[in-house]
Amino acid sequence: MTIVEVTTLEPEVLEEAIPAHLKRPRTRPRSSPPGFTPKHASYSARFDEDVAILPMVYIGLQFPPRARVEPAIQTIEDGIAGSFGPDFHDRARYVDSQGKENIIFALYWRGRENHQRWNNLKPDGWWHADLAIGGEIGAFEERYQPSVMDTETTFSHPHPEGYATLADGMSGKTDTHEYWGSARDRIPRAQFDDLAPGVLHHADDPAKSETQGRTVVVQPHENLCLLRSGQDWTDTSGAEREFYLTEVRPLLEAGMREISEDGAGMGCHFNRYVQLEMDGAPVERTYSLSAWRSLADLEAWVKADTHLQIFGAGIRHFKKAGERAKLRLYHEMMVLKASDQRFTYFNCHNQTGMLRRLPDTRRSKVP
Amino acid sequence: MTIVEVTTLEPEVLEEAIPAHLKRPRTRPRSSPPGFTPKHASYSARFDEDVAILPMVYIGLQFPPRARVEPAIQTIEDGIAGSFGPDFHDRARYVDSQGKENIIFALYWRGRENHQRWNNLKPDGWWHADLAIGGEIGAFEERYQPSVMDTETTFSHPHPEGYATLADGMSGKTDTHEYWGSARDRIPRAQFDDLAPGVLHHADDPAKSETQGRTVVVQPHENLCLLRSGQDWTDTSGAEREFYLTEVRPLLEAGMREISEDGAGMGCHFNRYVQLEMDGAPVERTYSLSAWRSLADLEAWVKADTHLQIFGAGIRHFKKAGERAKLRLYHEMMVLKASDQRFTYFNCHNQTGMLRRLPDTRRSKVP
Repeated sequence: MTIVEVTTLEPEVLEEAIPAHLKRPRTRPRSSPPGFTPKHASYSARFDEDVAILPMVYIGLQFPPRARVEPAIQTIEDGIAGSFGPDFHDRARYVDSQGKENIIFALYWRGRENHQRWNNLKPDGWWHADLAIGGEIGAFEERYQPSVMDTETTFSHPHPEGYATLADGMSGKTDTHEYWGSARDRIPRAQFDDLAPGVLHHADDPAKSETQGRTVVVQPHENLCLLRSGQDWTDTSGAEREFYLTEVRPLLEAGMREISEDGAGMGCHFNRYVQLEMDGAPVERTYSLSAWRSLADLEAWVKADTHLQIFGAGIRHFKKAGERAKLRLYHEMMVLKASDQRFTYFNCHNQTGMLRRLPDTRRSKVP
Repeated sequence: MTIVEVTTLEPEVLEEAIPAHLKRPRTRPRSSPPGFTPKHASYSARFDEDVAILPMVYIGLQFPPRARVEPAIQTIEDGIAGSFGPDFHDRARYVDSQGKENIIFALYWRGRENHQRWNNLKPDGWWHADLAIGGEIGAFEERYQPSVMDTETTFSHPHPEGYATLADGMSGKTDTHEYWGSARDRIPRAQFDDLAPGVLHHADDPAKSETQGRTVVVQPHENLCLLRSGQDWTDTSGAEREFYLTEVRPLLEAGMREISEDGAGMGCHFNRYVQLEMDGAPVERTYSLSAWRSLADLEAWVKADTHLQIFGAGIRHFKKAGERAKLRLYHEMMVLKASDQRFTYFNCHNQTGMLRRLPDTRRSKVP
């Protein structure tokens, strides 16, 4: 006797978010309800099979308003422009919880090799080599190297941002969104892995080996979840623009404040809600970069009241604007192996990035 | 009509040096003469299929005799002992062409992940963070990450050294040695790749991006060839020991001097002929680590007079000592992609490692 497995057939026009070459036998079933079909369009970035790793580096400068930060910016821009530099990068700015200005460069490579070559050409700590210990400018570098198995994207429009700018294309409309658990269902590794977090070690290494001078390296833990979630209202106008700016954005900003300031209890290690810049001037695009103890923690927040309000406002926005909606939303999310993360902080205040998660005894080494 | 390919059958007792799972269709034939069978035994390290990368890091300290180098040694030993540290390491010493003492730590990992985790826990430049710019102690770090496709070993005895200590075992006797070109025939990638060198760029990046303070990073080139070639006379005695020390070693040392001092014209970037230490005291084991512009350059030197004399002395040694020969020779060799190399020099003299190959204008930045 043969056992015939019957699967629900999806409407022909929709694709799965996971591309064919990353499909694996599922030991962990999808969460989509039986017969589910999403109402709105969503797209995912597609890479050819030759792309296995998507290295990305976030470099930040942190300084009091009106500090003379131009030389430090120039150092980083020169570094980005060097041989084998990123295939795509963008620059953003925000004021953090301590009232410091932050400029954030996000660097992306398509594949491991050029990133590694670039990195191999850089002197250790090149991004802070010109800064003085105890000076008014701090800097940090957060490196991530997700496998394509460990990450997913979703876009309201086939309009790439982040690493999707390096993709070979966008999928057609997918069936893997608009239900609880859909982000997990889009991550190829989650087909067979529960993505459970490892423990954040504080005391594994003696301070000596992790902390030298004013540089602090934070030990990563398994399956940290990193979310870049973005908004682009450049092309909106009239009533749609008004609705976004007065109804959606205030709720988004309240949610951003919540996880930025009180995220610890929810498993949010840090959050930065930043505005992109072109040629040094702000543009109508924002994103938040948030790091979570696990995808499960993020999933829990997504179902909590603050986020439900943001989510509801987003739904109302697209319902109101209809098919011609010009507001573009996207995210790229990844669940990272410990070996694919590196966190280095130089001369930064102790509420910066992963430093927030260190016990006071460790954090106090940083000014 | 079918074309039948006839290959020479090797005697059943001998294996190929390339393991089955790294065999690829050969577009570049082996160099072994028809019907060739080697006279002496040779073995190669064998790794299971799960091992794809063999990261190794050479860390050196360079100092005038009698410098107080103990704290710098301790920093490196603490680093080695940290979480996810090397699966094997050894320590050696030599006096370089400038009369400086050098202590060399060779660190090996079985596979990429733990090396990456270890590296991600280390502050940038941790290996020289306690050293003063302009002080009497210099330090360098040379990182290599060969794929198992890019490297080979050969051993006169099934007695591992270097990365072979991390192997799953030794092969049986192989057929892939004792003829010109056999080293190339042992490298899996050479089955389909000529391993031609890339150009050593001097001026690709402005000095600014490569040189900061007293740290110099040297830009790698494609297919640099790295050879660790070792000698172990620990177990020799009587006439065999006498022969090695009076007939073989002096010729070896002359050859080492030749490529250390005058290697540039032969394509030898640098050579270090070092003696291993256990608990800080020398043991009866030496190795040379030499970096070549290409495998072809190394092959040319191997056929040149100086090396032929060493080679001849080795043959006489094993002929004389017969099957009970206790002298153990080995090498591990790799042809490295540019992205798998990283060279960093801090406060070192300008005849150190790859610094020898920089034009004077670049080298003069280093004391």
